[in-house]
Amino acid sequence: MKLYTYWRSGAAYRLRIALNLKGVPYDPVPVNLLKGEHREDAYRAVNPAGLVPAVELNDGQVLTQSLAILDWLDRAFPQPPLFPREPVARARVMSAGMAIAVDTHPLQNVSVMAYVRDDLGHGKSGAFTWQHHWMSRGFDAFEKLCDPDTRFAFGEAPGYADICLIPQVYNAHRWRLDLTPWPRIAALEAVCLAHPAFDAARPENQPDAEKEA
Amino acid sequence: MKLYTYWRSGAAYRLRIALNLKGVPYDPVPVNLLKGEHREDAYRAVNPAGLVPAVELNDGQVLTQSLAILDWLDRAFPQPPLFPREPVARARVMSAGMAIAVDTHPLQNVSVMAYVRDDLGHGKSGAFTWQHHWMSRGFDAFEKLCDPDTRFAFGEAPGYADICLIPQVYNAHRWRLDLTPWPRIAALEAVCLAHPAFDAARPENQPDAEKEA
Repeated sequence: MKLYTYWRSGAAYRLRIALNLKGVPYDPVPVNLLKGEHREDAYRAVNPAGLVPAVELNDGQVLTQSLAILDWLDRAFPQPPLFPREPVARARVMSAGMAIAVDTHPLQNVSVMAYVRDDLGHGKSGAFTWQHHWMSRGFDAFEKLCDPDTRFAFGEAPGYADICLIPQVYNAHRWRLDLTPWPRIAALEAVCLAHPAFDAARPENQPDAEKEA
Repeated sequence: MKLYTYWRSGAAYRLRIALNLKGVPYDPVPVNLLKGEHREDAYRAVNPAGLVPAVELNDGQVLTQSLAILDWLDRAFPQPPLFPREPVARARVMSAGMAIAVDTHPLQNVSVMAYVRDDLGHGKSGAFTWQHHWMSRGFDAFEKLCDPDTRFAFGEAPGYADICLIPQVYNAHRWRLDLTPWPRIAALEAVCLAHPAFDAARPENQPDAEKEA
């Protein structure tokens, strides 16, 4: 399968982690968001919503939306599972992941930041304030929703909540948000990034990675 | 089960529709977002993230995040299903729903609007511009992602994509966004609101509904 990806896209980073965890090989197809390639006709033909990531299956069918693709992936490749089997435990893991992937990430992606910075005229410092405000809210929630003393966010193996968290922590560093108020998240970052599936998925380890501007 | 709800919460509206579709009875517990009841200790004890909706099961366990609760609900009460059974078709339905519930709704909930209006100082007219910008992007995507000529968004029965769409259309009306550019969405609204499960879930039909301010 092909993964339409951008090294710094948090949503693409989620899928890279999950594909690595499942041991599913994929061909990365870089889409340069900074150059606006996601808005060009060639990519709109793949995903009419113009958003990264997308997955193209070998039969040409295209899947979009990272969380919908995670749902599909966990059904198509059940091992190792991204969720515990017990229904309420599964819902708790999904809820913690979504406190980041739904409540936080959509507020700070490229298009929203450009709108706050340029269209609303708050500039770079306004963008920093915006980022810190919403990321802090998301991390506050995650820190309370995850298990307090397991190796990963829930249990002894990585799963959906860790997959949603780690790309957001990468963004936190980019925006120089100090993680001291969230010791559990800081500890999870260290454990996850030591895992080969997460390490191989890191933005700086992608073929389309660029030097820091 | 108890549903912690607010009549105008789009995420609570989703769950009301789904519970009605499944024929699952529930006790509504109103949480007045305008009065800030979601930020008070009593509600934080239910959901530490301080967000509506939440579901409290009869054994006292609490589920949060509307999309995680929809996932749980569709497993706990499989009939009628919210998704087609075929995996790629399922992913397409989820992706369309998430173009609204993940890419659009989080950008225009109560806390974000207060931040744009008050903290960033763009006032009421800035809030309208913000709302129209992001809702238009979401509706553009949904209109392309759903099936073009089925009765509901996908197929002849309502499902996940319709459940995500209709509360956003309610918000569009509140913010006076003209739906003319999205004829498919306007048609889906008419079909869905004629369905008893959607009608009973409408904000104005809730016990905590207030007169328009």
